[in-house]
Amino acid sequence: MTDQSPSKTAVGRLPRQPATRPGSPDGSPDAPSRTGVSRRRLLGTAGATGLVLGAAGGAAGYAAAPAGAAPLTSLGADRAMFHGKHQPGITDALQAHGHLVAFDLAAGAGRTEAAALLRRWSATAARLMAGEPSPHDDTGVAQDAGPSSLTVTFGFGHGFFDRTGLQKQRPSALDPLPAFSSDRLDKARSGGDLWVQIGADDALVAFHALRAIQKDAGGAARLRWQMNGFNRSPGATARPLTTRNLMGQVDGTRNPKPSDDDFDQRVFVLDHGEPAWMAGGSYVVVRRIRMLLDDWEKLARAQQESVIGRHKSDGAPLSGGAETTPMDLEKTGADGSYVVPVNAHARITRPDQNGGAAMLRRPFSFHDGYGADGAPDAGLLFVCWQADPLRGFVPVQRKLDRGDALSPFIRHEASGLFAAPGGAAKGEYVGQRLLES
Amino acid sequence: MTDQSPSKTAVGRLPRQPATRPGSPDGSPDAPSRTGVSRRRLLGTAGATGLVLGAAGGAAGYAAAPAGAAPLTSLGADRAMFHGKHQPGITDALQAHGHLVAFDLAAGAGRTEAAALLRRWSATAARLMAGEPSPHDDTGVAQDAGPSSLTVTFGFGHGFFDRTGLQKQRPSALDPLPAFSSDRLDKARSGGDLWVQIGADDALVAFHALRAIQKDAGGAARLRWQMNGFNRSPGATARPLTTRNLMGQVDGTRNPKPSDDDFDQRVFVLDHGEPAWMAGGSYVVVRRIRMLLDDWEKLARAQQESVIGRHKSDGAPLSGGAETTPMDLEKTGADGSYVVPVNAHARITRPDQNGGAAMLRRPFSFHDGYGADGAPDAGLLFVCWQADPLRGFVPVQRKLDRGDALSPFIRHEASGLFAAPGGAAKGEYVGQRLLES
Repeated sequence: MTDQSPSKTAVGRLPRQPATRPGSPDGSPDAPSRTGVSRRRLLGTAGATGLVLGAAGGAAGYAAAPAGAAPLTSLGADRAMFHGKHQPGITDALQAHGHLVAFDLAAGAGRTEAAALLRRWSATAARLMAGEPSPHDDTGVAQDAGPSSLTVTFGFGHGFFDRTGLQKQRPSALDPLPAFSSDRLDKARSGGDLWVQIGADDALVAFHALRAIQKDAGGAARLRWQMNGFNRSPGATARPLTTRNLMGQVDGTRNPKPSDDDFDQRVFVLDHGEPAWMAGGSYVVVRRIRMLLDDWEKLARAQQESVIGRHKSDGAPLSGGAETTPMDLEKTGADGSYVVPVNAHARITRPDQNGGAAMLRRPFSFHDGYGADGAPDAGLLFVCWQADPLRGFVPVQRKLDRGDALSPFIRHEASGLFAAPGGAAKGEYVGQRLLES
Repeated sequence: MTDQSPSKTAVGRLPRQPATRPGSPDGSPDAPSRTGVSRRRLLGTAGATGLVLGAAGGAAGYAAAPAGAAPLTSLGADRAMFHGKHQPGITDALQAHGHLVAFDLAAGAGRTEAAALLRRWSATAARLMAGEPSPHDDTGVAQDAGPSSLTVTFGFGHGFFDRTGLQKQRPSALDPLPAFSSDRLDKARSGGDLWVQIGADDALVAFHALRAIQKDAGGAARLRWQMNGFNRSPGATARPLTTRNLMGQVDGTRNPKPSDDDFDQRVFVLDHGEPAWMAGGSYVVVRRIRMLLDDWEKLARAQQESVIGRHKSDGAPLSGGAETTPMDLEKTGADGSYVVPVNAHARITRPDQNGGAAMLRRPFSFHDGYGADGAPDAGLLFVCWQADPLRGFVPVQRKLDRGDALSPFIRHEASGLFAAPGGAAKGEYVGQRLLES
């Protein structure tokens, strides 16, 4: 009747090494897409060789495989690595379920308590991502399931450095974002001393991790805000590279690819004047972007495509070609006007229109039911990663703020900016190089 | 650049016939579980024979498979049938995502408008469940994905019959449920003239269907309440028959099985005094059951197991054996007390303790973030199906109301009771036999 017996465990059969060096030729780092190429290849291989998942043995873990049973796919067994040069959840494939949660340090909690908290959180994240129960009073909600590509990612907000007396270690990149004229931000759902991103391909695995992280916070930090999101399920679509958002639009076409020569320098902090503790880290901008779907869906498809600048069917630019064909910004139609309108969202956000800045968008959709007016409370939990927010998110958002055709159909309702330190080495916890500096 | 080109379609490769006669020996009706045996067998077969899913051809549909690409699994291609003796979404395997939504007929809308609405809804449901776009102004949100086991199920509430002048056709089984002392019901999120249950294994496919159903309502009905839920993802676990809820407890062990001799008579309306239009139908009780997880998780595991009467690890009764071993209610421990406490939830809800009544539980978990007090707004969207609520849900809930050890940890916050008519034959719409009687 004991559970968690090692003899019954069966996870980690198909470990997915995180992108310790995105773009490495071994194919292991997945592009942040629902059906990343390397993930698909992995599963294809498993199927072709008849590898039976869920058999006894394997790494120490949590998932109890009843005798003779085998999981349907490797979904449950898919595992991301906690330790590494970068934190997980940045270059890993988009998961089907996400939780974003922010905490504020509790009154009286300072550097010591923060260090202990990050130590607890890191231990929990490492165990859960390996498919093991949480260190204390595990709720059992994830029991039977494998890690299901769980990732847990930690970030520090501006106030964290005041609370911990570490102001001198605060990067200037954490200075508050400029105000944008179209912002309608709810302070209660914005900011926070600490931010945690949880992603997994199983809803109960994700919820289990959220509860464990919250329990670990104990008296050291109190929950500030929390949001739930989702992406397409693995296997629901054959589309190889990009996902769709709740407007029905292909999303993520212009994301930098780990195979790009400059991927690391765009996404991760290398050195150039940053505090040493941020080496291998990244800055994340989080925006809750409500979609005004009742208005959007009144537009005819051709109107929607003009707003975006891409075809809805396959994400190809209105100037022609396929999804990944470069957009011809100069192409004009029979009437002499640009085929891709000057205020089209995809024109404004093109990296080569923004000083080459690029951010790695890794969003979740959200749907929190309906408002009192009958309109859906739905949209995008925009999450983007970059080496420098002032060269990534800010200039693009500033241009969007001035003349994006999409603006009437969206509303930025919450905002956060966090510094996610580099990944923890084995025996280390996330943020240790800051908190024990 | 056109989308929805038939030459690109690839769905319905592995049609899942709905349970036209649950319990039939062909193995097609899935038990309502995350990893129903027949579903697993289906996928196992596909893997063993190397069947490539997502190739061109197949039924007319919606999912565009880029050249050379293949979905990871059959998840996207899995399809439930709309037409049949019973509506879909009752005996089909639990899906990973669910939406429950209730509408009230609009002022001025009567039987004619209701009939037209059910005709629209049935046409939309049939198309979306086949992986085709909705009939009008499809949003494109489900594009690229297969039907992903989408089901859409319709029910009528008590008030529907007043609004349509069909009071004489109202079954007595729709009489309001008795009040239970532990109820804390929010009227605004309870009841409704019309109820729709949407389930799918892909979040965007489910959301797309919800929007299409809402758009179809047009001026005939307005949204009353809407709730989102989830279950384990296909492939996350090897557990064959049951799921877990957010308390970490195995859930659904005692559900009637389609292979039971009396399955039909317990779940579906046969004849005995019912209106003819309900033949093949079922009554559904819907309860939003909030779990007080902060309190629950303070209990030690052994205390939780005493509350439920089953082991948390595998759902086996405290009296011994495996999950499906019959519970020994008389077994006593060394101190002479019952091993399964007298107020244990599983003792009280046992069908043979309730006049043999059984209901088919087919729930979704929910998590709508956190309340102002920091407690999770999470729990179970309890959905149970039965031929007669007065012999299914009501006597069990009455006993639970009197002395369930679980009561301090849950709160019934919303309630609905709906009559789901039998399935529509081809060319027919759901409810036609009522609305055109």
